[in-house]
Amino acid sequence: MSEKPLILIANDDGVEAKGIKVLTRLMCQLGQVVVVAPDGARSGSSCAITTHGTVRLTCLSQAPGLQVYSCSGTPTDCVKLALEKVLGRKPDLMVSGINHGDNTSVSVHYSGTLGAVYEACMKEVPAIGFSVRSTDPECDFSPYEQSILKIASLAMKKVFPRDVCLNVNFPLVEKLQGIRVCRLARGNWVEEWIEDGEADTFRLTGHFVNLEPEAEDTDDWATRHGMAAVTPLKLDMTHFPTLPLLKELES
Amino acid sequence: MSEKPLILIANDDGVEAKGIKVLTRLMCQLGQVVVVAPDGARSGSSCAITTHGTVRLTCLSQAPGLQVYSCSGTPTDCVKLALEKVLGRKPDLMVSGINHGDNTSVSVHYSGTLGAVYEACMKEVPAIGFSVRSTDPECDFSPYEQSILKIASLAMKKVFPRDVCLNVNFPLVEKLQGIRVCRLARGNWVEEWIEDGEADTFRLTGHFVNLEPEAEDTDDWATRHGMAAVTPLKLDMTHFPTLPLLKELES
Repeated sequence: MSEKPLILIANDDGVEAKGIKVLTRLMCQLGQVVVVAPDGARSGSSCAITTHGTVRLTCLSQAPGLQVYSCSGTPTDCVKLALEKVLGRKPDLMVSGINHGDNTSVSVHYSGTLGAVYEACMKEVPAIGFSVRSTDPECDFSPYEQSILKIASLAMKKVFPRDVCLNVNFPLVEKLQGIRVCRLARGNWVEEWIEDGEADTFRLTGHFVNLEPEAEDTDDWATRHGMAAVTPLKLDMTHFPTLPLLKELES
Repeated sequence: MSEKPLILIANDDGVEAKGIKVLTRLMCQLGQVVVVAPDGARSGSSCAITTHGTVRLTCLSQAPGLQVYSCSGTPTDCVKLALEKVLGRKPDLMVSGINHGDNTSVSVHYSGTLGAVYEACMKEVPAIGFSVRSTDPECDFSPYEQSILKIASLAMKKVFPRDVCLNVNFPLVEKLQGIRVCRLARGNWVEEWIEDGEADTFRLTGHFVNLEPEAEDTDDWATRHGMAAVTPLKLDMTHFPTLPLLKELES
């Protein structure tokens, strides 16, 4: 009998968030599941790693087919620890989320949900980040369940290249209008700071501006029109067309 | 008389690091300089942002042509604060570093030096990260000074596209063997955790493995052969060739 697929789950909202509990229940339908997630909220932690001090791993529960650990580090630390110290073999799939809040456009750079995904991708594990356009901690994730199972099943077949991972964003809807394969939108965050009463003390806020709001092939457009956006992301950030433009620097 | 160029400087080693002091002295030759850097070490902070709590900005010194601020947040917070709350206009250039430690290959994802660079790039400011393959706090940066001035001067002419920034890595040498325009090497970090005495407590370490050590067009190769590596990085992480491979997901 062949071994069941091994699935690693992480997130950046912490091991107690509703999103990761829903994702865990779904992944248990597809394989044997190990959760290694932060012990609290780590939103906006990007691919940060703990370079000073220690990271602690705590086993919260062990049942047949499902182990759950919390970790005192970042989402990226969680995946590094899982791959080297918790899982006995390379997993067949890594999923992150379901994030309470979307991760479209440039927000992929700030996202701890995707930080965990990139780390798994670097270690050549098929990896997907799932996010919903709602920060409600009690968000109803049921409209997305069938799409999550469909996308995760496809990813386990390794249909996309090494060094590529998936970023999936859902709109806040009762019924999805379908799935759309998209590129990232060009956009930016503006008016990002509010003063906090005390002098020279600020709190991060801001709002996102889509710089190409009519572009129907983008993740932001799809999720604003009731559709799930699936975007393949690459690890290699080299911009190849610029290489020849810089040749005058060589000596 | 035309205004002098305005140059923003940040880093992830903190405002007191030797690298940022050298970079500041050099940039003062090219324009009017504002430093906004973390109040302590923030290595490995990637594009992390402070989503909970406040960030404090402190003016350390103000002289004609040079202002220095420290910030309690991440490198990315520093750039966001500088652009919105400190500088009166969009800078002509943003530089980060000089980082004590290299940022080649996949390390670009973990780097706070580059987190600051990406943020400036998102805001359409020409931006460059400088790093040296040495973590010595007293590193001698003099072999790199002329190259830094040359690359910074070129970047201010906006020779590379919007949404592209530069990652520059120097070898630890007494005399540079030249500048090489490179792509990122494929590589990875392995054996990343050491046990810290206490049960289930770990400390991040590890070593980098270049998966294509003979590839002479890569940043890791160049810096292992005495040359400065200049790599253009893009913000848009979409992997376009994978888009058609995912079409079966659409419904």
